[in-house]
Amino acid sequence: MRPSAKLHDSDLPKARLRLWLKMLKAQGSIEAEIRRRLRDEFGFTLPRFDVMSALSRFPKGLKMSEISNLLKVSNGNVTGIVERLTQDGLAVRVAVPEDRRAQLVRLTSAGTREFSKLATAHEGWIDDMLAGVPADRLDDFSALLDTITDHLERREDQTNAK
Amino acid sequence: MRPSAKLHDSDLPKARLRLWLKMLKAQGSIEAEIRRRLRDEFGFTLPRFDVMSALSRFPKGLKMSEISNLLKVSNGNVTGIVERLTQDGLAVRVAVPEDRRAQLVRLTSAGTREFSKLATAHEGWIDDMLAGVPADRLDDFSALLDTITDHLERREDQTNAK
Repeated sequence: MRPSAKLHDSDLPKARLRLWLKMLKAQGSIEAEIRRRLRDEFGFTLPRFDVMSALSRFPKGLKMSEISNLLKVSNGNVTGIVERLTQDGLAVRVAVPEDRRAQLVRLTSAGTREFSKLATAHEGWIDDMLAGVPADRLDDFSALLDTITDHLERREDQTNAK
Repeated sequence: MRPSAKLHDSDLPKARLRLWLKMLKAQGSIEAEIRRRLRDEFGFTLPRFDVMSALSRFPKGLKMSEISNLLKVSNGNVTGIVERLTQDGLAVRVAVPEDRRAQLVRLTSAGTREFSKLATAHEGWIDDMLAGVPADRLDDFSALLDTITDHLERREDQTNAK
């Protein structure tokens, strides 16, 4: 049995706030390091990496609005990033046959190759940065994070059902 | 004894990447909800909340550059936010007696009262959003997050010592 933390109900809000602040700290430190390495080793920004990552998951292409939704960033920012990816030959805009006004953005094969290099490097950085978590606790840690997302999704379902 | 996850060494990079993606997802969902509530209930943006939060921790005031460092956002953004807080009577700029060029930013008493209301609401939202984590696992979860930050800090110390 796991040792109980023996929290009184009145301690829970503080314990949850502390957990959130620790999440922010850990996530912020990792993200800062990823930004630094993307910049220093590849001359890349994190939003540019994120757009390429989204495009790499949808080889048939994505509308601008779909990229924004996936990344939760504003359409304006995505437009600028796609503009520069296109200029650099890493992405192309293609017409949609059944909708004359719509355009899809796709990685070029040069873009796919470039992203594959970045993704490999990124995986190595994460491996390195998360090496402090005991190996036998990784799955448990992931499961704890799931308890947060599951709860948020249930809450959202309930709100939508009202 | 805790059940071992029995990960082979070759699975570790993937397990760490999965953990990182779950961290991003949980954190992103919480942050999106905080942004939404700050906007809907207080007409506030998250960066504005974060600047007031930093100022509330330093009642004697902070230089613009100190606010930027604490929040890891660019000086330009902080300037605009402080400008609007000042216009709204929530913050003031004060001269530093020993350095004529420097200015400190401080919350006004109206700003302190306003932030105290926001902080109470924010604590309630977090309490609500993290309610899915079993109460007796909260401290363990926090400790797991510490294993990440501790490792990153040790790495940084080693890099600086070189």
